[in-house]
Amino acid sequence: MMLEEVVLLAAVTVLGLLEQAYFSLKVIYARRKHSVSPPATTGPPEFERIFRAQANCSEYFPIFVFSLWLAGVFFSQALAVFFGLLYLYGRYLYFHGYAESAQGRLEPLYFSAKMQWVLIALAGLGVVCTITQAYLGLDLLHSFSRVLGLTEHT
Amino acid sequence: MMLEEVVLLAAVTVLGLLEQAYFSLKVIYARRKHSVSPPATTGPPEFERIFRAQANCSEYFPIFVFSLWLAGVFFSQALAVFFGLLYLYGRYLYFHGYAESAQGRLEPLYFSAKMQWVLIALAGLGVVCTITQAYLGLDLLHSFSRVLGLTEHT
Amino acid sequence: MMLEEVVLLAAVTVLGLLEQAYFSLKVIYARRKHSVSPPATTGPPEFERIFRAQANCSEYFPIFVFSLWLAGVFFSQALAVFFGLLYLYGRYLYFHGYAESAQGRLEPLYFSAKMQWVLIALAGLGVVCTITQAYLGLDLLHSFSRVLGLTEHT
Repeated sequence: MMLEEVVLLAAVTVLGLLEQAYFSLKVIYARRKHSVSPPATTGPPEFERIFRAQANCSEYFPIFVFSLWLAGVFFSQALAVFFGLLYLYGRYLYFHGYAESAQGRLEPLYFSAKMQWVLIALAGLGVVCTITQAYLGLDLLHSFSRVLGLTEHT
Repeated sequence: MMLEEVVLLAAVTVLGLLEQAYFSLKVIYARRKHSVSPPATTGPPEFERIFRAQANCSEYFPIFVFSLWLAGVFFSQALAVFFGLLYLYGRYLYFHGYAESAQGRLEPLYFSAKMQWVLIALAGLGVVCTITQAYLGLDLLHSFSRVLGLTEHT
Repeated sequence: MMLEEVVLLAAVTVLGLLEQAYFSLKVIYARRKHSVSPPATTGPPEFERIFRAQANCSEYFPIFVFSLWLAGVFFSQALAVFFGLLYLYGRYLYFHGYAESAQGRLEPLYFSAKMQWVLIALAGLGVVCTITQAYLGLDLLHSFSRVLGLTEHT
């Protein structure tokens, strides 16, 4: 495993870390604006929506990173990066939609959930194919890729 | 590091991702059933138990994945997979036990906590042995393994 | 990538896992002392501060581990370990400061936040340099390191 084979996954992860930092700062500002001092986590609905939006993004962030890397290492770095960027974009829309109204979180939530499912599916597919190849000698992934035209013919 | 040396850790991780997705869906159903709309996180005890069960599993999921991989890479993939699967099974029982009663969460919680400690211990042991070998030239892990009969005599 | 190149990152991660386990035990003791049974998460301020301190540390633990490893793999293991240990020490002070008073959490929180930002910056810098090198053939990281005297002249 060379660093070049995972560096784009690392780049998406750093982007995700910055996004999480941005959400955390938004909660700090909301705490000040609505005078909700820690350890309190309840207050006016505007504050609670921002607090929950950040909590939800934080909760799913490790799941996102794990599936991004498994999909990228065991299936395809390019596809993992593509769906990973869409996920982070969906989470950005989700956070701002939720900050405005509980209803406003739904559409981007469904979108980022779909991207998350794609990453988990790619990870699962890649892992199953690698196990099949390592223990049964069948190169399913290469066959898949060739059928889908995703890999050069080597 | 070949992919075959970690692919079973990846498989357990994907299983864990699916389990977390399952718990999240259960919370969504419980929100609908008990009419608890986000951002609210309080409601009837039945809902709060399911909400807390999922929150607890989510909180410990990254800790589980980190210790699984460290134990698997630095100690033994086979042992890490074994205790990792037991952990995920324990979490499944915990979630359903908690959904029924606060008391019902305790036994599987203690079980999965024990599996978590074993993974952390294996990770710590593997890391200490690797450091000892890299910086002092002593192959403790190999000696341990030979004493315990865990490795072939190479 | 040899295990020796990441084993100190692994050691800091194990230390972090033990710290998280320590915080979790503190919450269990606080629940007993203040008679706050799950699924309740509210109670006397002493309990709520300890509960929130642990929740906050848990929430940021994956972010810490991801940035530690990215900084260590793509920039410098030694620097990542150095700032990683400071982060964990800051979190220890934060937890105990918060347990005493909401005010007492602030100074160590700012300190660990700074260490977190340094890790994210090192990760970002390392990733950008690796991408530049892989796709443009420019060895920025090596030039940086040489300017800063961080690397032996090879």
